[in-house]
Amino acid sequence: MGTFIVIEGIDGAGKSTQARLLAKWFEERGYDVVLTKEPTDTAFGKLIRKLVLTGGREGIIDGARISHEAEALLFAADRAEHVAKLIKPSIEAGKVVISDRYFYSSLAYQWARGLDLEWLIDLNRFAVRPDLVILLDLPVKESMKRINGRSIKTEFDKIAELQKKVRENYLKLAERFPEMRIVNALASVEDIHNDIVALVEHELFKK
Amino acid sequence: MGTFIVIEGIDGAGKSTQARLLAKWFEERGYDVVLTKEPTDTAFGKLIRKLVLTGGREGIIDGARISHEAEALLFAADRAEHVAKLIKPSIEAGKVVISDRYFYSSLAYQWARGLDLEWLIDLNRFAVRPDLVILLDLPVKESMKRINGRSIKTEFDKIAELQKKVRENYLKLAERFPEMRIVNALASVEDIHNDIVALVEHELFKK
Repeated sequence: MGTFIVIEGIDGAGKSTQARLLAKWFEERGYDVVLTKEPTDTAFGKLIRKLVLTGGREGIIDGARISHEAEALLFAADRAEHVAKLIKPSIEAGKVVISDRYFYSSLAYQWARGLDLEWLIDLNRFAVRPDLVILLDLPVKESMKRINGRSIKTEFDKIAELQKKVRENYLKLAERFPEMRIVNALASVEDIHNDIVALVEHELFKK
Repeated sequence: MGTFIVIEGIDGAGKSTQARLLAKWFEERGYDVVLTKEPTDTAFGKLIRKLVLTGGREGIIDGARISHEAEALLFAADRAEHVAKLIKPSIEAGKVVISDRYFYSSLAYQWARGLDLEWLIDLNRFAVRPDLVILLDLPVKESMKRINGRSIKTEFDKIAELQKKVRENYLKLAERFPEMRIVNALASVEDIHNDIVALVEHELFKK
C-alpha cells in the first residue's frame, strides 16, 4: 500500500509549489510519485472551471452563476472520479499520491458559503482519507498581498472576507480531522519545505 | 404558492406523454404551467448525457465510464440547479410545475447500482418535496417490449435486469415517501391520463 498526502490552504499559501517540492523529495528517494490536484483536468474539472471559478482565482469569487449546493455536488462528483480512477488505484499500486487540494477544500470553502458542514462531510463520504494533510496556514493580509496582482479592486474586500472565513474553517477542521497538521506558510519556501519533510518523516516513517 | 407534481417510472412507462397531457389539462383550466424534466438542459444535463447516458436509453446502461458515486453526485448537482433556478421560483410564483423525473429516479436507479440509499437521500436533502408523485408502474417485460426498438441484442438482458431492480426500488420508495401514488401504466394512454387526473383532483383539490 502506498501513501496519500494532501496539501491544503487558502489561495496564495504556496500549495502547488510545496506539492511539487515534496513530490521531488520523494522521487529523489526512489518512490513512484503521482502528483495531482483538485479540481481535476477531467470533464468535471472543466465544468467546474467554466461554471464556478472566475478570473483565475479558483474558488474565491462567490459566483452568482450556480447555486452553492450545485457547486458542492459538482466538486464532490469531480472528487469521486479522482478517487475512483486515480487516487485509489495509485495507492493500491504502492505509489505516493500527493494532491494539491482535496475534500478539506470543499469543506472549508463551501462551509464558508453557508452550507451545512455535516451535509458536506456526508457528500464526501466516499473519499479515501489521506495519511497526512498539510495545512499551509497564512494570515489573510499576506494571502491578499500575494494574490493581489490577480484581483481587481472592487472584488478585493469580498475576496478578503471569504478568505478570512475559509482560513478560520481550515483551522477548525484541523481540530476535527486528526490527519491534518498545520504549517506556518509565512516562512520561506525552503523553510516550509523542510517543515513539511519533518512532518512527513515523523508521521509516515515513525513506525 | 403553486403546486409541484412529478411523474416517475422505468423507461417506456409513458412518463413524458403523461407529463404533457397533464400539463395540457392544467393549462385548459387556466393554470400557469411549467413542464420540465431531469436531467435538465443545462451544462450539467449536457455533461450527464455525455458521461452517463448512452444510445438514448437514459440511465439504463451501466456505463463503465464514470463511477457510480460521481454519477449520483452529478445528477444531484443538476437537480440542485433545477430546484434553485426553476422549480422553487416557479412554485413561489404560484405556478404548476410538472417534472418528468426527479430525485426518486436517482434513488431508484443509483440504489439499483449498489449505492447506499440513505447516502442518496442525504445528497438530495436540498430538493423541495413535491405535492404529488405519480409512479407509472409497468412490468419489465412490457417495458422491454416498448423500448426494444432502441436496444441492441447483447445489451438486452443487462437492461432488463436493471429495469427489474429499478421497478422494485420504485415500489419500495412508494412505501417510504407518502407523496408517491402508483398508477398502472399497462392501460391505454387515455385511461392512464384519467387515473392521473383523478389522483390530482383527489390529492391536491380535496382541501
